[in-house]
Amino acid sequence: MSGWPRCVQYLFYYETPKTLVIPNITAGCVFRLTQLLVVLYVLGYVCLVDKAYQETDSVVSTVTTKVKGFAFTNASSIKYWDVADYVIPSQGGKSFFILTNMIVTFRQTRSRCPLFPDLSTVCVDDCDCIEGLNDPRGSGIQTGLCENFSTTVKTCEVISWCPLEIDSHLPDHALLDSAETFTVLIKNSITRNIAPHINSSYLRSCEFNRSSDPDCPIFRLKNIVSEAGEDFQDMAVKGGILGIIIDWSCDLDWWARKCSPKYSFRRLDSRIPNNDVAPGYNFRFAKYYMDQGGEEFRTLFKAYGIRFDVIVFGTAGKFGVVPTVVNLGAALSFLSLVPLVADWFLLTCLRKKDLYSRHKVSYLREDTDSEGETMHTIFGTK
Amino acid sequence: MSGWPRCVQYLFYYETPKTLVIPNITAGCVFRLTQLLVVLYVLGYVCLVDKAYQETDSVVSTVTTKVKGFAFTNASSIKYWDVADYVIPSQGGKSFFILTNMIVTFRQTRSRCPLFPDLSTVCVDDCDCIEGLNDPRGSGIQTGLCENFSTTVKTCEVISWCPLEIDSHLPDHALLDSAETFTVLIKNSITRNIAPHINSSYLRSCEFNRSSDPDCPIFRLKNIVSEAGEDFQDMAVKGGILGIIIDWSCDLDWWARKCSPKYSFRRLDSRIPNNDVAPGYNFRFAKYYMDQGGEEFRTLFKAYGIRFDVIVFGTAGKFGVVPTVVNLGAALSFLSLVPLVADWFLLTCLRKKDLYSRHKVSYLREDTDSEGETMHTIFGTK
Amino acid sequence: MSGWPRCVQYLFYYETPKTLVIPNITAGCVFRLTQLLVVLYVLGYVCLVDKAYQETDSVVSTVTTKVKGFAFTNASSIKYWDVADYVIPSQGGKSFFILTNMIVTFRQTRSRCPLFPDLSTVCVDDCDCIEGLNDPRGSGIQTGLCENFSTTVKTCEVISWCPLEIDSHLPDHALLDSAETFTVLIKNSITRNIAPHINSSYLRSCEFNRSSDPDCPIFRLKNIVSEAGEDFQDMAVKGGILGIIIDWSCDLDWWARKCSPKYSFRRLDSRIPNNDVAPGYNFRFAKYYMDQGGEEFRTLFKAYGIRFDVIVFGTAGKFGVVPTVVNLGAALSFLSLVPLVADWFLLTCLRKKDLYSRHKVSYLREDTDSEGETMHTIFGTK
Repeated sequence: MSGWPRCVQYLFYYETPKTLVIPNITAGCVFRLTQLLVVLYVLGYVCLVDKAYQETDSVVSTVTTKVKGFAFTNASSIKYWDVADYVIPSQGGKSFFILTNMIVTFRQTRSRCPLFPDLSTVCVDDCDCIEGLNDPRGSGIQTGLCENFSTTVKTCEVISWCPLEIDSHLPDHALLDSAETFTVLIKNSITRNIAPHINSSYLRSCEFNRSSDPDCPIFRLKNIVSEAGEDFQDMAVKGGILGIIIDWSCDLDWWARKCSPKYSFRRLDSRIPNNDVAPGYNFRFAKYYMDQGGEEFRTLFKAYGIRFDVIVFGTAGKFGVVPTVVNLGAALSFLSLVPLVADWFLLTCLRKKDLYSRHKVSYLREDTDSEGETMHTIFGTK
Repeated sequence: MSGWPRCVQYLFYYETPKTLVIPNITAGCVFRLTQLLVVLYVLGYVCLVDKAYQETDSVVSTVTTKVKGFAFTNASSIKYWDVADYVIPSQGGKSFFILTNMIVTFRQTRSRCPLFPDLSTVCVDDCDCIEGLNDPRGSGIQTGLCENFSTTVKTCEVISWCPLEIDSHLPDHALLDSAETFTVLIKNSITRNIAPHINSSYLRSCEFNRSSDPDCPIFRLKNIVSEAGEDFQDMAVKGGILGIIIDWSCDLDWWARKCSPKYSFRRLDSRIPNNDVAPGYNFRFAKYYMDQGGEEFRTLFKAYGIRFDVIVFGTAGKFGVVPTVVNLGAALSFLSLVPLVADWFLLTCLRKKDLYSRHKVSYLREDTDSEGETMHTIFGTK
Repeated sequence: MSGWPRCVQYLFYYETPKTLVIPNITAGCVFRLTQLLVVLYVLGYVCLVDKAYQETDSVVSTVTTKVKGFAFTNASSIKYWDVADYVIPSQGGKSFFILTNMIVTFRQTRSRCPLFPDLSTVCVDDCDCIEGLNDPRGSGIQTGLCENFSTTVKTCEVISWCPLEIDSHLPDHALLDSAETFTVLIKNSITRNIAPHINSSYLRSCEFNRSSDPDCPIFRLKNIVSEAGEDFQDMAVKGGILGIIIDWSCDLDWWARKCSPKYSFRRLDSRIPNNDVAPGYNFRFAKYYMDQGGEEFRTLFKAYGIRFDVIVFGTAGKFGVVPTVVNLGAALSFLSLVPLVADWFLLTCLRKKDLYSRHKVSYLREDTDSEGETMHTIFGTK
């Protein structure tokens, strides 16, 4: 054996540290207790609380929404609204908008009209108006003419869709205030949010309620908004964006196997009173018509309302080799710190520390080529 | 040197464990084999299988879709459909809907009409109808009048878009059954899904086929649906949602550098026969017209069809320092366990274990201030 | 104590390695320096650069966009365009399309017309046309008749929306070239992208500029496109897709607490000249009208333009126990490698290496049951 090349001996001879057993119960307890703390962290925090042994994966999910409800209003010239009128876009995807308030401008045609009077538009004669001026925040392209806006005021004329929209007077009570009674069915199939024990007749009549019907996927708009801490009628006037957050935390390990949605609601647009740059949520759309002469005209809607964004968080956790090994490895690293703690305790806190130190630590005296006792002793005798 | 403060000595004197070399090939082999196992895990599982040394990053990607095809149907009063008619929304984003079946209600106006007769709507006189009743699952707002629905039945009258939609009789063969021959070009540029070796003339004529043309980004709708395990004509009747899942697993390390899409198809809406709450996929939309008198009327579509959701998973993995160090660290931790295994083997399984134990482990006898032999021996001689 | 069961002794007696202190400054320095390197990696790279001690979480965010601007064009029969006309869809979500160029086909009705002449459509008599042929890349369903397209050419007749669209001549200067002066306000509330020090009057007049106004959320389209390295007028002709990437890297730790958006712009559709399969971005949509006789007709738009996709990356990092422990554990593992390095240095590089080796490593001679000096010495004396 000893005739083998040294590298083979290095490979297959076993080199192991020499150890000293110290029959001191206190040191032993300190050692075991520190070990216990690390093991508790691994079992308790890593495995139970954080489930850090799992690999997570995002999930494929799809959302369809279906709103039901009818609105009737006396305050507008358009009195009756059904789903095809007030849900935009009509497809029922994960983001849908419910029209609640609006400024309607009927029978706009491509023509010319004087601007609304304000500091920059009032004019005395044509010299005050610049032909071709196209202010991106204005309402059209100026013709260079100064026309009578009323009998007392003259303003610059623009080429635009006329009559111009008057958007300064938004109804301060939402026109479609009854929208709060509408319901929405949200189908979110990750596996499925409709639990298997729920049957069709229950779904035909149920309504989500956090305490009594937490599994029903039919929500009343008023309740969604109030769960988000807002008032529907308030929000309906200027519009806003409301998040319906569905949180699937699926545990796909065979010993757990659960996957259920948790619903929460939150207003997503900022609502800071001092910083009201375009507060709320609105957009403009038009319906186009053609008259007998082939001339196109339109009805312009400045639509205010609530956009509901269904946001699905789905993380599917499953036992994974790599995260388990990494977390165990980290814990083992900390276990390798434990002897340091115990040694420190042994050599500084115990009564017989000098005895222990003498036997554990040798001090190499280079000059005499011999091992002395510990440094402490040496320094002591010097 | 020994005159320096003790803390400096503590810092710069080197303390190293005393070791014992045991010339036992078996112990050496056990030690090396256990080490080998850990190293194999790191090289094999962490590096090759799981690529855990990579940092992953999500990727910016965009999807455009373009459907081609024409449908002709004899079964409907609207006989001819092209892309601008049946693709909703028309923009061709990552979610597009192909109309396949529908219930059309022509020339609805805002007016009054009696409800369809059922248990809750049949009435004898006006007392049976509640003025202003607005059932969110109903069809309009009751006027409180009881009107003749037919010569034999009277029902409550509602303010609504009249005539009311009759949605009980959905054609049981999809009207636009020829939609299955439509093709869709999906452009998904993460870098690009159109491989560089593909030229324009190939793309003008190719069609995706898992075996013969796996790189062609033009899909026939029928094939998409059948790859998802569904029948197009079945699905076309009541509608549904189909996921086109594009999985880019990019390896951006310079020694790998590959990034190619894998296509898979899956039906996303649940299809559980017992639990048929609003099965399939449909929504209502309307086209608005105006008659000569300025009265608005509309054509209401209850549109059934297949919504295709293009879902892009893109993870770009690249060598990262932190995951590499963390995984190596975990492996090193396990390497530090190896001596424990080897020591246990040495001191319990080998024939000369007492000899090894005597030389490796000393036992401190506190009373006589001397080191004895190992515990085992001591207990043995007692 | 020694009367206790052995397993209890094993549990509570403390076994510690015997160590040897070597008063060699060089070895000590090598040891400390290697330790320092590991500690520097942890402090420097893990904590400062990579913030690997944080758990990251994705953030709920919402985007609304609002475009302003008017376009006037002499080159088209439709001369004037406002927001409701050219923004599709009108809702102002995170993906919006600005119409810049188009091919308009007016007054299409469902009828019959001869195809445009090309190799496959020119015919001599009815025998050359196949009744019912529905080429998915064609323009309609053939009637089987061969009709006069002009006085000199006969082509097969199709049932389709007639007159057919002529999409071979796209205006090579974008019709709505003034779209480059439009501005868009992007509201992205994660917490909010409108910094608290910005007031309403600043926002009414500001415009994003990377150097002077990096916080202003109002962007001029021309600037977005040029920051992405493209020319607006070029891109406006055939269309394209532009990503507005908002990167929120929030540090939610109490000692950092910052969360600010970084804007960047990138063209997302591929633009490879040799591989021009459907380059740019376009789609078809139609406006539907009804004539006095109740016949539907439509205006078909082949719309070219720029789709802006607002892409929000939000990772909220916060101190997490598990990642901290895992990273510390990995670092500790590497610390446990340090003695190996120092030992190797001690036993091979130093002048007195034989002396150190003799005292550190004992060699068990199994035959005589005694510890000899180190292997090196033994081999040396042989």
